[in-house]
Amino acid sequence: MDQIIKGSQSLLFRNAPYLISAGSVVGSKEAEGPLGKLFDMTNEDDLFGAETWEEAESVMQKEACVLAIGKAHVNVEDIRYLFGGDLLRQGIATSMGVEGLQIPMFGLYGACSTSGEALALAAMSAAAGYGRYMLAVTSSHFGSAEKEFRFPLGYASQRPLSAHWTVTGSGAFLVGAQGELQNNEIQNKAIQEGTKKSHVRIAGVTVGKIVDYGLKDSQNMGACMAPAAMDTIVQNFTDMGRTEADYDRIITGDLGYVGQSILFDLVQAKGYDIREKHMDCGMTIYDQETQDTHAGGSGCGCAAVTLASYVLPKVEKGEWKRVLFVPTGALMSTVSFNEGASVPGIAHGIVIEHCG
Amino acid sequence: MDQIIKGSQSLLFRNAPYLISAGSVVGSKEAEGPLGKLFDMTNEDDLFGAETWEEAESVMQKEACVLAIGKAHVNVEDIRYLFGGDLLRQGIATSMGVEGLQIPMFGLYGACSTSGEALALAAMSAAAGYGRYMLAVTSSHFGSAEKEFRFPLGYASQRPLSAHWTVTGSGAFLVGAQGELQNNEIQNKAIQEGTKKSHVRIAGVTVGKIVDYGLKDSQNMGACMAPAAMDTIVQNFTDMGRTEADYDRIITGDLGYVGQSILFDLVQAKGYDIREKHMDCGMTIYDQETQDTHAGGSGCGCAAVTLASYVLPKVEKGEWKRVLFVPTGALMSTVSFNEGASVPGIAHGIVIEHCG
Repeated sequence: MDQIIKGSQSLLFRNAPYLISAGSVVGSKEAEGPLGKLFDMTNEDDLFGAETWEEAESVMQKEACVLAIGKAHVNVEDIRYLFGGDLLRQGIATSMGVEGLQIPMFGLYGACSTSGEALALAAMSAAAGYGRYMLAVTSSHFGSAEKEFRFPLGYASQRPLSAHWTVTGSGAFLVGAQGELQNNEIQNKAIQEGTKKSHVRIAGVTVGKIVDYGLKDSQNMGACMAPAAMDTIVQNFTDMGRTEADYDRIITGDLGYVGQSILFDLVQAKGYDIREKHMDCGMTIYDQETQDTHAGGSGCGCAAVTLASYVLPKVEKGEWKRVLFVPTGALMSTVSFNEGASVPGIAHGIVIEHCG
Repeated sequence: MDQIIKGSQSLLFRNAPYLISAGSVVGSKEAEGPLGKLFDMTNEDDLFGAETWEEAESVMQKEACVLAIGKAHVNVEDIRYLFGGDLLRQGIATSMGVEGLQIPMFGLYGACSTSGEALALAAMSAAAGYGRYMLAVTSSHFGSAEKEFRFPLGYASQRPLSAHWTVTGSGAFLVGAQGELQNNEIQNKAIQEGTKKSHVRIAGVTVGKIVDYGLKDSQNMGACMAPAAMDTIVQNFTDMGRTEADYDRIITGDLGYVGQSILFDLVQAKGYDIREKHMDCGMTIYDQETQDTHAGGSGCGCAAVTLASYVLPKVEKGEWKRVLFVPTGALMSTVSFNEGASVPGIAHGIVIEHCG
């Protein structure tokens, strides 16, 4: 048993599950950004045929799941458990979004770290043999998040430069014990069509702790989350006996420009230098110069759609052999903020590797 | 691998983890109820030394965890992962409550089914060998829940008879791969003091699907959740080849008087009769005659503290050999309710057994 447990917070799977397929659905602003052409599905009015932002977010989650399932040519009945979450109160985008799939489900909340939380639990369940396939999905929507955490869009409230722009997007990931397609009718067809084995595995995870430096500025979430990102990255190095040299990229979720500079300083104080290896999904998804996104993108969907569209294809091809994916979350609500509580952070680390 | 997978939604663990200890913390109304003397900790003003209902809920979570850990004489550093949740937006009671414990954590949301979700994931992680001890904790608070879902208490709003009374309480559960105490200094002391092996195991789980009969009345949650309870109970019977005869009790979380009668009808239509075996935590925790609690207790804490204080001691002693614990949740938010969405339900089944 002890072989798979590493240090105090990490697991290194004996039979690392495969990340078989991914689906990404985004809104108009993301479609106009640097990664625009890489996403599977986009929508011009950000409503996806729905009447409210919340329903639109649910539609995105469902479509992302359907895309991931479809690409793998898997029967939805063969997906054992779904792990999903979003930023809204009572995770309502997920409940309404995945309801139609009728997969037994675990609802999650880890703020913007939820894509890491979902991937960790999906990988842990697949590696334990609790089912052939697991599905992990998260989402966020600019319209529903502004309403939930700040003001409805119609108020046209001003934003400080340290504020993030919540990504309208949903990413879903199919995780399986075996990377190869199973022998059934649908999949035989897929094999004839040239669908191949996945070359991406989730080798391990580092589950994050809540890290609280006492910051209270909900309009500067990069600063609130950077200590948690540092904690999980350094813990991953310690638990697995590694350094930044062992990763092709260390990919945070949505620290943005402000959070990145703090992260570099905090990591350096621990004796590591990740500057050459670091990438932040919130800085990658938008063009700061032309898109007026201030500190960068954020939200449960930010890290998820960047992983699905940009990171995984590079790992699949072997361009990157091993990356540490570290979505970061700021744990707050309007109630906790109004009552003067601090904004602690949490970050979960997922070790993603290319395999032959 | 396939031996532990049962049917389409269930797992039966090859090495069933132990439910080692539990802690329960409740407010004044619960202390005055039928189970009052069984709880570990109560508080007269329901604030637990805090200044807001939300902070009070966080204090309850922390104290419940400390109680569960303390009873087992386990070092907090030996607890690998924590699975926790509550009813508040962005799970803030949990984030603020468990922060001080510094255990790597997974935040969950399954409405009032969250205690089942947390126990399922804790048991799955322990059974997979991902760590020696896991902690599962959930909470609810009448004051914070009324504010979150209905009106602040100061408004003194009226309640229909089908409404539930949210339990002020938190229950925490220590789950471990081995039921016996480990060999270290603290535990040697515990053994001398007569602490013994746990006689309670989590034999299996049935993970719930989202079940939506289209009901929209958030003041009649028993009706909204009953279909999900039926679905999970019948699925458990089907997956494991069992009937109501195989359980000493089938224990729902918080269906209340309205939900119970619907559950009996729905289950009967599937060919089973659970009337002799059914118990509902929401009906057990208050005295409907004298406590003015209408349909019964509810909330993330309701099933958790009833399990901790009333059910587990009976299983520990062998009075009940096998129970099916089925916390039920109504998946809604004020936003989804105001936008006219229905209130789907979800229920997770946990098979808890006495062992020699």
